[in-house]
Amino acid sequence: MTESNKETFMDKKLSRRRMLKMTGAGAAGVAIGASGLGGVLKAFGVPDFLEDDTSVENKVNFYGKHQSGIATEVQTHVYFASLSVLVKSKAELQELFKMWTPMAVSLMNGKPIGETKNSYVPPVDTGEAIGVDAKNLSITFGVGPSLFKNKSLGLSHLKPKELNDLPHFPKDQLEEAYTGGDLCIQACADDPQVAFHAVRNLVRAASGKVSIKWTQAGFNSIPVNKEGKRETPRNLFAFKDGTENPRSEKAMNDVVWVQKGESKPWMTNGSYLVVRRIQMHLETWDRTSLQAQEDTFGRYRHNGAPYGKENEFDAVDEDRKDENGNYVLPETSHVFLARQVKARIMRRAFSYSSGVIDHTGAYDAGLLFISFQKNPQQFTDIQNALGRLDKMNEYITHRGSGVFACFPGIKKGSYIGEALFNA
Amino acid sequence: MTESNKETFMDKKLSRRRMLKMTGAGAAGVAIGASGLGGVLKAFGVPDFLEDDTSVENKVNFYGKHQSGIATEVQTHVYFASLSVLVKSKAELQELFKMWTPMAVSLMNGKPIGETKNSYVPPVDTGEAIGVDAKNLSITFGVGPSLFKNKSLGLSHLKPKELNDLPHFPKDQLEEAYTGGDLCIQACADDPQVAFHAVRNLVRAASGKVSIKWTQAGFNSIPVNKEGKRETPRNLFAFKDGTENPRSEKAMNDVVWVQKGESKPWMTNGSYLVVRRIQMHLETWDRTSLQAQEDTFGRYRHNGAPYGKENEFDAVDEDRKDENGNYVLPETSHVFLARQVKARIMRRAFSYSSGVIDHTGAYDAGLLFISFQKNPQQFTDIQNALGRLDKMNEYITHRGSGVFACFPGIKKGSYIGEALFNA
Ligand code: HEM
Ligand code: HEM
Repeated sequence: MTESNKETFMDKKLSRRRMLKMTGAGAAGVAIGASGLGGVLKAFGVPDFLEDDTSVENKVNFYGKHQSGIATEVQTHVYFASLSVLVKSKAELQELFKMWTPMAVSLMNGKPIGETKNSYVPPVDTGEAIGVDAKNLSITFGVGPSLFKNKSLGLSHLKPKELNDLPHFPKDQLEEAYTGGDLCIQACADDPQVAFHAVRNLVRAASGKVSIKWTQAGFNSIPVNKEGKRETPRNLFAFKDGTENPRSEKAMNDVVWVQKGESKPWMTNGSYLVVRRIQMHLETWDRTSLQAQEDTFGRYRHNGAPYGKENEFDAVDEDRKDENGNYVLPETSHVFLARQVKARIMRRAFSYSSGVIDHTGAYDAGLLFISFQKNPQQFTDIQNALGRLDKMNEYITHRGSGVFACFPGIKKGSYIGEALFNA
Repeated sequence: MTESNKETFMDKKLSRRRMLKMTGAGAAGVAIGASGLGGVLKAFGVPDFLEDDTSVENKVNFYGKHQSGIATEVQTHVYFASLSVLVKSKAELQELFKMWTPMAVSLMNGKPIGETKNSYVPPVDTGEAIGVDAKNLSITFGVGPSLFKNKSLGLSHLKPKELNDLPHFPKDQLEEAYTGGDLCIQACADDPQVAFHAVRNLVRAASGKVSIKWTQAGFNSIPVNKEGKRETPRNLFAFKDGTENPRSEKAMNDVVWVQKGESKPWMTNGSYLVVRRIQMHLETWDRTSLQAQEDTFGRYRHNGAPYGKENEFDAVDEDRKDENGNYVLPETSHVFLARQVKARIMRRAFSYSSGVIDHTGAYDAGLLFISFQKNPQQFTDIQNALGRLDKMNEYITHRGSGVFACFPGIKKGSYIGEALFNA
């Protein structure tokens, strides 16, 4: 028996009776009820407070002015979860976010949510990420419009007026199975299992307090060039996706981060997340000429440059006309249309590929479109500009939707959403 | 305009008329019909023969004694596709595999299936893997029992007697949506988009000749230790999965590779693939004590060592008893039971996590179990040994199934499945 095994057995002996009392389990190894889990975990292994461990490799910081997973350089994987709230009071909801805070720090430190010290209860952490480093895990928490309609929580007076379900857009075919949610957790990492593990453990620790409404896993394939520099990933239409995005601090403040006075005070330094599960009809796209594909975006496929320009990051000039007086960018192109309104957004999307649709054999694949903006209206303005004109409409169908107010960043000693609960 | 853009426009001018004739498209950019696609691709950009480019980074070889993706060190992602055959003759099926051969080589070289030289037809390659290296892509082709029952193909006399749908096992809850198939393509890579891209392009080039029956994406999170060595990945129950597997050449010949005279001659050096889509009931598992979890396998969670041993790779001794005469390995444990029969298999599994099951909110997650063996009976013997006794049955449900005869490796100048067509 190794030292570590010995330790486990020692612990068992010492605390077995206490465990059985605690869990109400009549015999060793008996499963405990769902609702008792959070308490057991917290009592036996989850710390109350944790700091970012900056010695960890591939580590994103939890604490800061803004939440992680928004300005964070996009990772290769996401596991996005939309949750329903089961708690019946504001105090319980507050407790939930307090409990989640050190867990999220621990996960982002590449550690389990807590140490399992005893074999007679379920492991504190589900364990599938043991031995894998932090993988740049980021965890972003948000609250949806329905949370504020929930009377027993008494939060309705704190709903920002801009936080509403998105309007119905002409070609939407939203499915209940991918729409809405009281809370969201966006876990992004450079490993699918690490992202999944984060959501699974947060939800599990909150069993009886939240339930899953829908989830979607997604990925980005990030090319690295000869100089070792990351390039813009391509979506499943093979076009570079994410080129035109706010990046400077000024642009982020203009577009993404809620400034003082722009929303409810508890949202200052936060941002609004819009998620759309957009099916891409790959079979139709794949029968379309390269010319028509490029006309769809107004960009070249091979290097992502805008029509009439040479390089991916050359400025788009949507007003430019050729010698015949025609716009250089096709007037039905996605980029031309997206630029007909002033609003801007920060896109942080992932591809998904979830098998095939049962009755048709078509790929259930597309874009898990995620954008951040200081007001969901920015998204709505652009989506309306794309409207019925966007040539891309022939090739896509919006199947899911959500909008969430993502809290500002968390200060050490504080907890996720504190400003909301103290408002 | 850059040099490369100029080239594209030159090409367009030169061959536009030829294109329009070829595709029957009346106007530039008009989509062409599904059935015409393969021919167009082949005529304009797919080579007839290609060699492994050993100068490419992260490259698995296509040609060899055995197909890739079997003995190949397991990658982090799989996209598994089961296909139905639409062709009506052996000659057409043979043409299909001939067409796929150089495409598979090109993909495994980290290249598109062919060069797109003209904008007035659909791109030869769908392009989403441009700029990403080979990512250790392996592509494994197999044929299912139903292919030999298809009268128009005239292959029935070539069916190996061991190639049959698996028998119904007591606790099976197989769904048609994840079961069977005439052909399979297993694409594995260290990138989800590269794996998906491979299947998408092979299937697209074969449009009108095959259709997709079902697909499943999967992943492995492979820990790397301090010495930079890869460790055994953990499944979603957090246990190291793949520890006990044939590895030596002798073991591979005994367990995995069909030897001369052991099956139909066309299968010599090939192997049989069994795939099972096994849902893992994570919610139930996560309420189970660590002790009971470890008893389920007869191995320790933290390091994967078998009960009574110290290290992951220590030999399992299923006959050993303790001082009271009880087996050290629980008699209902997965490992104990799997060892009650002589048969062995090589497991090469991936986890999957495909959202939640609509009406219950339970994770649609589990193991895309894939095993290779020289005879599917080896799998059946073990599955029968697990039978109704396996403690793990409480936590899993088999939802999908397939069995495929994977051809031997391909010699340069030959093509996938040649031995079958020449038999
Ligand atoms: C499957 C759906 C979509 C695909 C495949 C897609 C793809 C693209 C591509 C390839 C670009 C050009 C490269 C870049 O700047 O990133 C782009 C730009 C853009 N897209 Fe989308 N997009 C999709 C949906 C949407 C939606 C729903 C919105 C918002 C309503 C949107 C807003 C934008 C904006 C604002 C730009 C930048 C335009 C500019 O300022 O140049 N996209 N998209
Ligand atoms: C979700 C389903 C399954 C899970 C989670 C699972 C997990 C495991 C684990 C953790 C081990 C021990 C570590 C190792 O040697 O890799 C193992 C061993 C093994 N499993 Fe499974 N397994 C599953 C399904 C199956 C099925 C369907 C079969 C075949 C019918 C199978 C056959 C084996 C064999 C042969 C061994 C090695 C036993 C030995 O010789 O020590 N497993 N499995």
